[in-house]
Amino acid sequence: MTNKVPNTSDGKNSVARRLVILTEGHSEPITAKTAASVLRYKPEDVLALLDTTQVGKTAQQLLGVGGEIPVVANLDAVPKANTLMLGIAPPGGRMPEAWRSVILAAIDRGMDVVSGLHDFLSNDAEFCNAAKLKGVQLIDVRKNNERDVADRQNIREDCLRIHTVGQDCSLGKMLVALEVSHALECAGQKSKFIATGQTGIMIEGDGAPIDCVVADFVSGAVEKLILANQHNDILLIEGQGSLAHPRYSGVTLSLLHGCMPHGMIMCYEVGRKNVNGMEHVPLQPLSKLVNVYETMANLMCPSKVIGVAMNSQFVSADEAEAEREKIRRELGLPVCDVIRHGPEELVQAVQALLPQLATS
Amino acid sequence: MTNKVPNTSDGKNSVARRLVILTEGHSEPITAKTAASVLRYKPEDVLALLDTTQVGKTAQQLLGVGGEIPVVANLDAVPKANTLMLGIAPPGGRMPEAWRSVILAAIDRGMDVVSGLHDFLSNDAEFCNAAKLKGVQLIDVRKNNERDVADRQNIREDCLRIHTVGQDCSLGKMLVALEVSHALECAGQKSKFIATGQTGIMIEGDGAPIDCVVADFVSGAVEKLILANQHNDILLIEGQGSLAHPRYSGVTLSLLHGCMPHGMIMCYEVGRKNVNGMEHVPLQPLSKLVNVYETMANLMCPSKVIGVAMNSQFVSADEAEAEREKIRRELGLPVCDVIRHGPEELVQAVQALLPQLATS
Repeated sequence: MTNKVPNTSDGKNSVARRLVILTEGHSEPITAKTAASVLRYKPEDVLALLDTTQVGKTAQQLLGVGGEIPVVANLDAVPKANTLMLGIAPPGGRMPEAWRSVILAAIDRGMDVVSGLHDFLSNDAEFCNAAKLKGVQLIDVRKNNERDVADRQNIREDCLRIHTVGQDCSLGKMLVALEVSHALECAGQKSKFIATGQTGIMIEGDGAPIDCVVADFVSGAVEKLILANQHNDILLIEGQGSLAHPRYSGVTLSLLHGCMPHGMIMCYEVGRKNVNGMEHVPLQPLSKLVNVYETMANLMCPSKVIGVAMNSQFVSADEAEAEREKIRRELGLPVCDVIRHGPEELVQAVQALLPQLATS
Repeated sequence: MTNKVPNTSDGKNSVARRLVILTEGHSEPITAKTAASVLRYKPEDVLALLDTTQVGKTAQQLLGVGGEIPVVANLDAVPKANTLMLGIAPPGGRMPEAWRSVILAAIDRGMDVVSGLHDFLSNDAEFCNAAKLKGVQLIDVRKNNERDVADRQNIREDCLRIHTVGQDCSLGKMLVALEVSHALECAGQKSKFIATGQTGIMIEGDGAPIDCVVADFVSGAVEKLILANQHNDILLIEGQGSLAHPRYSGVTLSLLHGCMPHGMIMCYEVGRKNVNGMEHVPLQPLSKLVNVYETMANLMCPSKVIGVAMNSQFVSADEAEAEREKIRRELGLPVCDVIRHGPEELVQAVQALLPQLATS
C-alpha cells in the first residue's frame, strides 16, 4: 500500500491546489523543512507562508527558496487559497497548540488541511466535526495501516537501487535523492524518486511515511515500495535519520534493510557538530559512518557508499570548496553539494554502477 | 508509560487468573513460544492448552514444559477457567480466522481474553460488543500509545544494563534475560527483568511491547523503561529480533540504542541455519554478529559482548557439549545453555562488570 496525496485540493484533478503553508514562529530552514521543500519543488502551488512573527518578509529571505512568495499574518490576506499545509516537522511530530485556531479558521473558510504530523488531524474530534460541516478534507500524510513484513522475494536485480543515507536527520537526504533522480531522468534514464517521509510524499504524490509505521512492519512497507516501482531502471530511495541517531536509528536500519541498496550516497551538513535537537550528543565522523553503513547494508546484499553529498548552505563558497577537497581526499569518493555544484558527480557515480548490474 | 498486565482476571488482585491457552494447530515450541513461556514461568496460572489436533497429550509432551497440564478440545472441558490467552506469535502477529469462534465462546462464558497479537481484539466490533454484554475484559498486551522520543538524559551510570541480543528471532533472548536476572536475584543482587515483548510483559506484569510502537518512538519507549527501573543495581533487558533480520532489524537497533547496554549476551540456537520463517535467508556467523552488535552499540556507549547463551534444546547432551567447547574456543567467551547447564557462567560474566561500573 502506497500513501497517495492528491496534488489538487479535492483529489480529483479538477481544482488546482493553492497552498498557504503554516510555519508560525518556525520560519527557518531546518524546522520548516517541509515548507522549504514544497517551496523548492512545488513553488507554483504556494500562495503564501503564514507566520505572524515574520510578516512582510519573503519566503526566499527566510528559507532560501520560494522567491517573492510573501509571509502573511492571517488567511484573510490570501483569499484565493484553498488548502492550508502545516509546514514544520518538530521532534516527535506534535502540533503546537497555538495552531489549533488557525486550522479551525482554515476549515471555516472551506479550505482543506494537509498535515505531516504524528498527531493526526483526523483523530481530533473538533477538527473532524468542523471539516464534516464544511465538506473539506483533512489529509494526514503520515496516517497508514501498514501490516506486512518484508519477504525478500521477487526483487529484480536489474533495477538499480540507490539510497541516500546520512550523518544525522534533517540535512538533505530527500533533496539529494530528488536532485539525483531528476538529473538521471534528464540524462535519459528511467529513474524514480521513492519517498519515505511526509514531505517527500507531499512532493512526489506517493510513497510511505515509514517513521509512522508500526515498528515490525517498516522494512515490509519499504519492500513494497521497491516491488511496486522496480519496472524503472533506477530507484533513488530517500533516506531517514541516521544509523547513529539516538532516536531514529531503528527507522534508518529498517529502511536500509527494506530497500537493500546497491549503492549509497552519504549526506552531511558542513559544520554541524552535534545531533540535530540533541546538542549533548556529538555526531560520529563521516569515515566511521561509511564503514557502519556498508557493514549494515552488506548484511543483506553487496553495497557500498559511492559518493558524498555535502550540504554547504551555511558556509561560504570558499569554505565549501576547501571542505569538498578535504572530504574527497579523506574518503576517496566523489563529493558535491547538489544545489551549489549540481549533482553531476553523483549522477556519474550512479551511472557507473549500471554496467555492473547488467553483468551480475 | 509502561504496559501493565493484570496477573488476576479482573486486574484488582481479588480473583486469581486461571488460564486456558489457545494454541490450536500450533502446539510446538517456536510458534507457540508465548504459551511455552507462560507455562515455564507461570505454570500455576495455567489449567489447560486448547488444541483440537492434540487432545489427550500434555503440555510437557508438546512444548517441553508444563508437566501434566492437559490439552483439551474445548472450553467445556475446563469449567473453572476464567481467562483465555492466545498463545502463539505468528509472523506479522495476525490472528488465524478460525480462532474467532473460540474467542466468542470464551467471552460468552464470561472469560477475559488476553492477546499479544498485532490485530487488537479491542479494535474488533464483534468482540467488543460481546465483551461489553458479558462484562469481561479484552486485554491487548501490544496496544500502546507511545509518543516520546529518546533524550539520552538522566541515565544513571551506576545501574548496570545488560541486554540479550541474538542471531535470529524466536530463539530464547527473553528466557535468557529472565534466567540470568532470577539467578542474580538469588545471588543477592537487586536485578530486574525488563520486558520488551508481549510474552515478557505477560510474565513480568510490566514492560513495553516495542515491536508494536510507531517506529519513531521505539527507542524513546525503551529509554523510559530504563529511567523507570534504574533504581535497581542491574537491568536485564530482553532483546528482540536480530540486527541481521530482514524484517525486524530496525526494532532490534531501536532497542539496542534505547537501552545502551554496558554488556550484551549473544543468544543463538544450535543447528539453526536460516532465518526463522525465511528459509531462503541464511543466518550470519556468530563471530561476525559479535562485531556487528559491538559496532552498533558502541555508537552510543562503550559496550561489549560478555558471553554466549546457546539454546541446545534440539540436540543431544553430547552434541551440546561439543558445540559449547567449539564456541568457547571460537569466540573466547563464556558459553552456556541456561536451561541445560544453568546460567552461572553468564551470571559471573555480568557480575564481573560491576566493579568497572563503580569506578567509571
